[in-house]
Amino acid sequence: MSEPTSLAGEAEQLDAADGLAAMRERFVLDDVTYLDGNSLGALPAHVPARVADVVARQWGELRIRSWEESGWWTAPERIGDRIAPLVGAAAGQVVVGDSTSVNVFKALVAAVRMAQEDGGAGGGDGGAGPVRDEILVDATTFPTDGYIAESAARMTGCALRAVAPAEVPGALGDRTAAVLLNHVDYRSGRLHDLPGLTAAVHAAGAYAVWDLCHSAGALPVGLDEHGVDLAVGCTYKYLNGGPGSPAYLYVRRDLQPRFDSPLPGWNSHAEPFGMRPAYAPASGAVRGRVGTPDILSLLALDAALDVWDEDAVSVAAVRAKSLALTDFFLRCVGAYVPDGRVESVTPAAHAERGSQVALRCDDAGEVMKRLIERGVVGDYRAPDVLRFGFTPLYVGFADVERAARVLARTLAG
Amino acid sequence: MSEPTSLAGEAEQLDAADGLAAMRERFVLDDVTYLDGNSLGALPAHVPARVADVVARQWGELRIRSWEESGWWTAPERIGDRIAPLVGAAAGQVVVGDSTSVNVFKALVAAVRMAQEDGGAGGGDGGAGPVRDEILVDATTFPTDGYIAESAARMTGCALRAVAPAEVPGALGDRTAAVLLNHVDYRSGRLHDLPGLTAAVHAAGAYAVWDLCHSAGALPVGLDEHGVDLAVGCTYKYLNGGPGSPAYLYVRRDLQPRFDSPLPGWNSHAEPFGMRPAYAPASGAVRGRVGTPDILSLLALDAALDVWDEDAVSVAAVRAKSLALTDFFLRCVGAYVPDGRVESVTPAAHAERGSQVALRCDDAGEVMKRLIERGVVGDYRAPDVLRFGFTPLYVGFADVERAARVLARTLAG
Repeated sequence: MSEPTSLAGEAEQLDAADGLAAMRERFVLDDVTYLDGNSLGALPAHVPARVADVVARQWGELRIRSWEESGWWTAPERIGDRIAPLVGAAAGQVVVGDSTSVNVFKALVAAVRMAQEDGGAGGGDGGAGPVRDEILVDATTFPTDGYIAESAARMTGCALRAVAPAEVPGALGDRTAAVLLNHVDYRSGRLHDLPGLTAAVHAAGAYAVWDLCHSAGALPVGLDEHGVDLAVGCTYKYLNGGPGSPAYLYVRRDLQPRFDSPLPGWNSHAEPFGMRPAYAPASGAVRGRVGTPDILSLLALDAALDVWDEDAVSVAAVRAKSLALTDFFLRCVGAYVPDGRVESVTPAAHAERGSQVALRCDDAGEVMKRLIERGVVGDYRAPDVLRFGFTPLYVGFADVERAARVLARTLAG
Repeated sequence: MSEPTSLAGEAEQLDAADGLAAMRERFVLDDVTYLDGNSLGALPAHVPARVADVVARQWGELRIRSWEESGWWTAPERIGDRIAPLVGAAAGQVVVGDSTSVNVFKALVAAVRMAQEDGGAGGGDGGAGPVRDEILVDATTFPTDGYIAESAARMTGCALRAVAPAEVPGALGDRTAAVLLNHVDYRSGRLHDLPGLTAAVHAAGAYAVWDLCHSAGALPVGLDEHGVDLAVGCTYKYLNGGPGSPAYLYVRRDLQPRFDSPLPGWNSHAEPFGMRPAYAPASGAVRGRVGTPDILSLLALDAALDVWDEDAVSVAAVRAKSLALTDFFLRCVGAYVPDGRVESVTPAAHAERGSQVALRCDDAGEVMKRLIERGVVGDYRAPDVLRFGFTPLYVGFADVERAARVLARTLAG
């Protein structure tokens, strides 16, 4: 068992050598050890002034003119293009707006429609096989994806089957239309095999919809590289867009002409100001838009994304630091916390780990309450998980050591 | 034909006698004559400081704690309860979130499901009649409602029929499931007969969904009084919530237990933090929620609604002034603009007029451009309509006279 002082000393060295350490200055942080950026990212320091300008000048002074002059109208696709490189997508495939739940609905219904139209993504046989009438959903998903998948299934005449991600390859069949998967499990922090599972889904002639809420901004996603069909994600976790900032939808370029939205609002029309009674979808990712975008939330996100561009932060560097942080946390917990008091449910293997560590603990709810009182903020997920998120842009190794130390003290009573 | 000076003098007198005149001070306005509040309401002067507090303190300092401590989690229903009296609804029936388009989808699908379940709102025969498989939609609707209605019809196995509102009573039948109507026509400014049409829809055993975008905040709606089933509306027009501020959904109390949402996101779950794999809907209007609410936009709206409460503004007073403003505008246009150059498409009868005046004009697009250059801001709706909105909280009679005068000068070349 290492001495606390030696781990604290090691943390100091790691922080000194951290190429991303200076990024912390870009965020509003205080004495609290904030390990809940996987729920709500911290405030980037320049965002308040930017939001103030949107409110006072763009809305207050320019008013309606801002739809053109301040770029409000095109913000969903423009900001989508800023998120695109963070998830490994070329421009023109990501659009921002609505909540993650609403985007899951769009993506899943559109995926089923494509599958039913072509008999499967991989098949060129014009639908000679059986009808594609089954949706598979990650059995360990954050609940909203499952609830929305159930609605999408009901409204497209499909059956819904919940399957653990590892068992998806064996569950796929010639009736599978679409598969909804999480890149990183919200509870355990497990990173799923996006390339392998996407390939398996395609081999079965189905479409893969990925939920990136817990991976985007924390690790490489590679949507284009791995041929993902559709993806959704939120922007208020590792992208620091602010509470409830709008989600995004990725539609792979070659699928865009076939993207048939269940929510074809006027913002997705080819000529939105033509006021045509008949619907005609726009080209490109814009087809995923619905109604009038929520400009204040959207432009706060726009500002928050500056931290990636202005410092040319690479997702690879973020991932390297994220793994170093979670490795170090697991070591500190191993050193400080008595054996058997907590158990990590986050995989030890790097290839299977997101940017969080989840510890199973009998009295997790009570323990997290006390941790927060002591200035270590993680969160609790029912029934028995302590969840700690590590945002490489602003969490350092000293934070990690402190969190483990306070956890050990808290568990000691 | 009146002399310009006499109408200007009359405007001065009307402004002096206007009980709402002092409200103008609560808004950020400048030399521009702003008659586009029916597109984007002006900025209430106290909103910037409130938004700054939400960003800097609630997000920046309290971070995740704000979901409880700053009331973020319950904001959609709390703010819904603030909108409720403005649309004639008792508390507990309005929830804020998502765009108008998304709420139209929720309301219409839920209405069809109720109709198919009971064979009609008015019938107690347990569905002995023919299946309810038709949706009627206002043929003159703002396009998004028509596009979304088409999707709702497609996804519930209904046919969609576009009918002019006045012809709805004759078009209703025992197969009608739901009718989607606009309270005020976005283009012509015509106010439709909400009580009469709702009664007709009910007499046919169907459900009425009303879009209040162009009436809420400008005139009495009386949702409860007239037994409306479901309603939606935006908050960035006469409610001044800010660009793209979230929309709202009204579900009449007795229908709430039967409201079966096509977008059953985790925020609508009976136990959202229980992380249950099985969906179980919450009670009440909360059932209309979907995903994580966009807090910045939502709390800007919350602040904007203060102008109604703090000054105890009555919707009846707003309506009286609105009619006086549009009457006066029509008189000024009649006096200043050469005969035949423009034609009002807004009804002359008060009972049929919203809070805007729409003038048909051959070169409307070009005329509006020149009007805006001269500091009179209305908007243009293809192909030939000049649209002027009158927000009684901040538009005065001198504004009206000036707008008509500048219009006449502009039309003169």
